[in-house]
Amino acid sequence: MGVAFLDWLAIEEVGISVFISYGNKADVDEIDLLEYLMKDENTRVVTMYLEEISKGREFIEVARKVSMKKPIVAIKAGRTRAGAKAVSSHTGALAGKDEIIQAAFKKAGIIRAYETHELFDYARALAAEKIAWGERIVIVTDGGGAGVMATDKLTDKARGVGLKLAKLGEETIRELKEILPPFGIPYNPVDLTGNATPEMYRQVLEVVARDEEVDGIVTIVLIHPPGMNEKIVDEVSKVFEKTDKPILVAATGGTPTQKVLLEFQRRGIPSYPEVERAVKAMAALVERGRFLKQAKSKG
Amino acid sequence: MGVAFLDWLAIEEVGISVFISYGNKADVDEIDLLEYLMKDENTRVVTMYLEEISKGREFIEVARKVSMKKPIVAIKAGRTRAGAKAVSSHTGALAGKDEIIQAAFKKAGIIRAYETHELFDYARALAAEKIAWGERIVIVTDGGGAGVMATDKLTDKARGVGLKLAKLGEETIRELKEILPPFGIPYNPVDLTGNATPEMYRQVLEVVARDEEVDGIVTIVLIHPPGMNEKIVDEVSKVFEKTDKPILVAATGGTPTQKVLLEFQRRGIPSYPEVERAVKAMAALVERGRFLKQAKSKG
Repeated sequence: MGVAFLDWLAIEEVGISVFISYGNKADVDEIDLLEYLMKDENTRVVTMYLEEISKGREFIEVARKVSMKKPIVAIKAGRTRAGAKAVSSHTGALAGKDEIIQAAFKKAGIIRAYETHELFDYARALAAEKIAWGERIVIVTDGGGAGVMATDKLTDKARGVGLKLAKLGEETIRELKEILPPFGIPYNPVDLTGNATPEMYRQVLEVVARDEEVDGIVTIVLIHPPGMNEKIVDEVSKVFEKTDKPILVAATGGTPTQKVLLEFQRRGIPSYPEVERAVKAMAALVERGRFLKQAKSKG
Repeated sequence: MGVAFLDWLAIEEVGISVFISYGNKADVDEIDLLEYLMKDENTRVVTMYLEEISKGREFIEVARKVSMKKPIVAIKAGRTRAGAKAVSSHTGALAGKDEIIQAAFKKAGIIRAYETHELFDYARALAAEKIAWGERIVIVTDGGGAGVMATDKLTDKARGVGLKLAKLGEETIRELKEILPPFGIPYNPVDLTGNATPEMYRQVLEVVARDEEVDGIVTIVLIHPPGMNEKIVDEVSKVFEKTDKPILVAATGGTPTQKVLLEFQRRGIPSYPEVERAVKAMAALVERGRFLKQAKSKG
């Protein structure tokens, strides 16, 4: 499975500092590896696939120390009864009660991934080293439907991530009205409509990034409207380089869209093929912000 | 957004009989379209992206009639309060209470998708026209970890689809022991391990497909072990053509894996780049089976 992951990361051009498969850990375990990776200057984010945690107390302590310096994202497989049984057939490990794992991850600041893509989606967002210091998110789109779907995923607590749509400031709305076409929507989700151009995206992103009510930006870029083209990467980059707030890009489509996504990735701008994946990755940045704020306040 | 969807389907080589964007439906609405698509011989599955349902009672009646003949998969956007508000900015539509939508979909036999990829993942599974007549699923894998993750997704009620791991019959287990290497796992999830070959997959699939305890098969194919190669498509096809039980394939990886996925797709075998997506698609086939059984019993 590790090789399958590496292979996947290669086509998405995600940089890997080191890849470690530690087998049935007869000698070296996850604690040793975390201690090593904490000091490894080439590693910005640590991702883990775990089936068991053997020395719980020590693991939490070391992982928390690592989390203060760099984020950890982990899948803990065998979280259901049937899954735990499968783990014990697979490696002989004891999967442990999931409530305990959940509490341990929280204490250690580990961001939990549940599905395969989440592990790398979250890692890529975190590798950009921009943190969401609050949960008020703005969605910028040129497709109304895509904006609605992102909003559903963002605000739903049961099937989504339970964050907040930022309420844009009056000044922001006034400025957006000047940038957008008359039938555009200057509220959140901000809709540039089929009249969108790369330059319009840059202007809109500059305005929303300045708004103090906004903690993070999900930018949906459908490249099909006539005014849209590959320059979108340059224009979004200009804002990305100037702001401390996280910007995540979502673009759904075929080959031309995939080229744009890869170009974003090469510039270090986290980009995703589905709006829901960008929204979930934003939630990982919010979780990271919460952990760091809380850890700092505890001194 | 419709164009973005079409573009996506093109690279996945999903066949489209007809694509309809009906705008703000001044004249033609979803009921007219469903009536047309019911009779369209080129259409095996209907997918819908909806922001509102105007004539509720009539919609349910017509959709139920269609569902008896061919499956409908739908995204209803604007299911949260914030999403509904975004819908009304977008098209002026009233999104309606989600509990009512949920009940209407259930009555009409509409399979609900929540995220972009689900719409087409479910449609592709349904287009193969094999139905899961029960919820007892077997997972076949050559990667232990991938099998565990699929098991978690399959059996978890909150974060997964809440189906059951089939308890394989004694005869099945005996036969599997003869096919698998000594360190293979003849229980569910069945693990062929890194010794897997395409031929071994065929033999294993033949055995589990015969088991009366099995309603559906999720086959995870990591192509990285030394004995694995592109012949896996031929070998899985042989079983797929003979059995009435649904077989869904999951393969995670880079370019060589993507080639294999596309080859499965060309043979009409639904295939997915992540185990979790295959498991969710299996749940759509179970839902379809439940609807048809219930509808038949009502006469």
